Amino acid sequence: MDGEKIPSVSRVRSYLLKKQDEICRGLEAEDGEARFQCLELDGERGGLARPRCLEDGPVLEKAAVNFSHTRGESLPKAATETRPELAGRSFQAVSLSLITHPRNPFAPTSHMNVRFFVASREDKDPIWWFGGGFDLTPYYGFEDDARHWHETARTACSPFGDDVYPRFKKWCDDYFVIKHRKEARGVGGLFFDDLNEGGFERCFQFLQSIADHYLPAYLPLLSRRKNHPYSDAHRQFQLYRRGRYVEFNLVYDRGTLYGLQAGGRIESILASMPPLVRWIYDWSPVAGSEEERLSKDFLRPRDWLTIDDNVDVNREKP
Amino acid sequence: MDGEKIPSVSRVRSYLLKKQDEICRGLEAEDGEARFQCLELDGERGGLARPRCLEDGPVLEKAAVNFSHTRGESLPKAATETRPELAGRSFQAVSLSLITHPRNPFAPTSHMNVRFFVASREDKDPIWWFGGGFDLTPYYGFEDDARHWHETARTACSPFGDDVYPRFKKWCDDYFVIKHRKEARGVGGLFFDDLNEGGFERCFQFLQSIADHYLPAYLPLLSRRKNHPYSDAHRQFQLYRRGRYVEFNLVYDRGTLYGLQAGGRIESILASMPPLVRWIYDWSPVAGSEEERLSKDFLRPRDWLTIDDNVDVNREKP
Repeated sequence: MDGEKIPSVSRVRSYLLKKQDEICRGLEAEDGEARFQCLELDGERGGLARPRCLEDGPVLEKAAVNFSHTRGESLPKAATETRPELAGRSFQAVSLSLITHPRNPFAPTSHMNVRFFVASREDKDPIWWFGGGFDLTPYYGFEDDARHWHETARTACSPFGDDVYPRFKKWCDDYFVIKHRKEARGVGGLFFDDLNEGGFERCFQFLQSIADHYLPAYLPLLSRRKNHPYSDAHRQFQLYRRGRYVEFNLVYDRGTLYGLQAGGRIESILASMPPLVRWIYDWSPVAGSEEERLSKDFLRPRDWLTIDDNVDVNREKP
Repeated sequence: MDGEKIPSVSRVRSYLLKKQDEICRGLEAEDGEARFQCLELDGERGGLARPRCLEDGPVLEKAAVNFSHTRGESLPKAATETRPELAGRSFQAVSLSLITHPRNPFAPTSHMNVRFFVASREDKDPIWWFGGGFDLTPYYGFEDDARHWHETARTACSPFGDDVYPRFKKWCDDYFVIKHRKEARGVGGLFFDDLNEGGFERCFQFLQSIADHYLPAYLPLLSRRKNHPYSDAHRQFQLYRRGRYVEFNLVYDRGTLYGLQAGGRIESILASMPPLVRWIYDWSPVAGSEEERLSKDFLRPRDWLTIDDNVDVNREKP
């Protein structure tokens, strides 16, 4: 049995529901005023959706933290085409998905998704896997912020092996690419899918470690940047960069596109959309500006944990 | 020869270049202040891109009117899969694509695209076709505006047969659907593709008739609504509705997705994006409001040319 307990949807579900509460409380506390609008929607055959969205806070212009538990007769074609062993199986999926859009342009947007799938068939063992990760999208780059984010990501991974962080960090860099811009969405973090190495218990512990490290990774950055003085030009740049987020989510993001095609609750799926977005035709930043530095220095895969301090001229003094 | 002259890319190109000038002048005149930023980019083997974008006008918050002539060794897979006779052919495509995003929430967004393709192979006759149309997206519904738009569309089609308008009107209604919202993008207009019935000459005349009727269809609406008094609530609703435009263009629009995948000039392809957009979580209009009337009365396929005046309580008096 050890390390290979029966995969339990209900245990993951209970954990994610508690985690949703905790993250919402943490974000509300950092905002100080706004509160999440909460819904509980019973799904078919014991399913549950618990979408939560906060808007118009002094710190968080928008944040969405959505739990869902769905059950289906068969997995979508997209899933069974690449994994034919899943065909003809019913499934259950539990997930927690979140995004934050801070008001201050110096505070980064964050995203986390953690999910667990079990595909069942009466005459066979269940097939199960975990997926998820978290990633950060700054509008103005701070080396210290990216380093703290990635250090926390590494801490979350380290009990599970030294290769875990670099592997899932690279997967994240590879996934969050706005292909038509040849540009990274942000500074990355962790991304993984189809995880079932080492048995359910260990994988579930890993998922918990990721989700448990989200607030410690993000809240210090939000706290540090939420009162950073900014001008209208900074704000306009933030609105402009949010367009990239929209482009990624609507053109490439698998979760979003799957949700739209599968006919899920649109307002939950598109809760990730930024509250206010600007597109400017053929805009490019002034040479040498902070805005240019974002694309040149931050929006490319970097090893954030071994930055050479001599090169890192913009690093803030501790 | 008559009605079956050799398909001529250069004739269509010359026509579209002149039409681009004329439409830009017409929109600039209606705006009164802003001017199109113009570029001329030579493409490979005689190709040409002439993207034009106007921003921040008092009337037009943004407008893009883009001409392009591209030549390629082979058509993309997407094209040859549905039409295997096109495989192994080189091609040329000329197109004029436009969109307007007026500032006033009572003035509708308009879109037109007209295009001509020729696919060639040394040992065979060329295969050619026209495609295009125009469609209207109001934020506040005016029956008179929709009627004028559709009457002009019918006028453009009528020399080519009585069945043309209803056929291409329906095609437009079927195409511009935001599937995940089960909602039309706007009040439609005309849409057609793969048109080559009746020979090149006749089809080219049809294309010209569509493009020639764009300004007469749109300018009167822009002129009539551009100074309509509006509140911040009207403006916010416009920004919110523009989100639907983004959702359609990035998730469904074939031209946009093809352009993004094919690696065209991103700023030209995404010039259709609205200048400023808002997403509000789980928002719905107040019962009985003008905002609700948009979805209930306007964003569904209707026969705009036989509206019953007794039913049409909101119709403006002439």
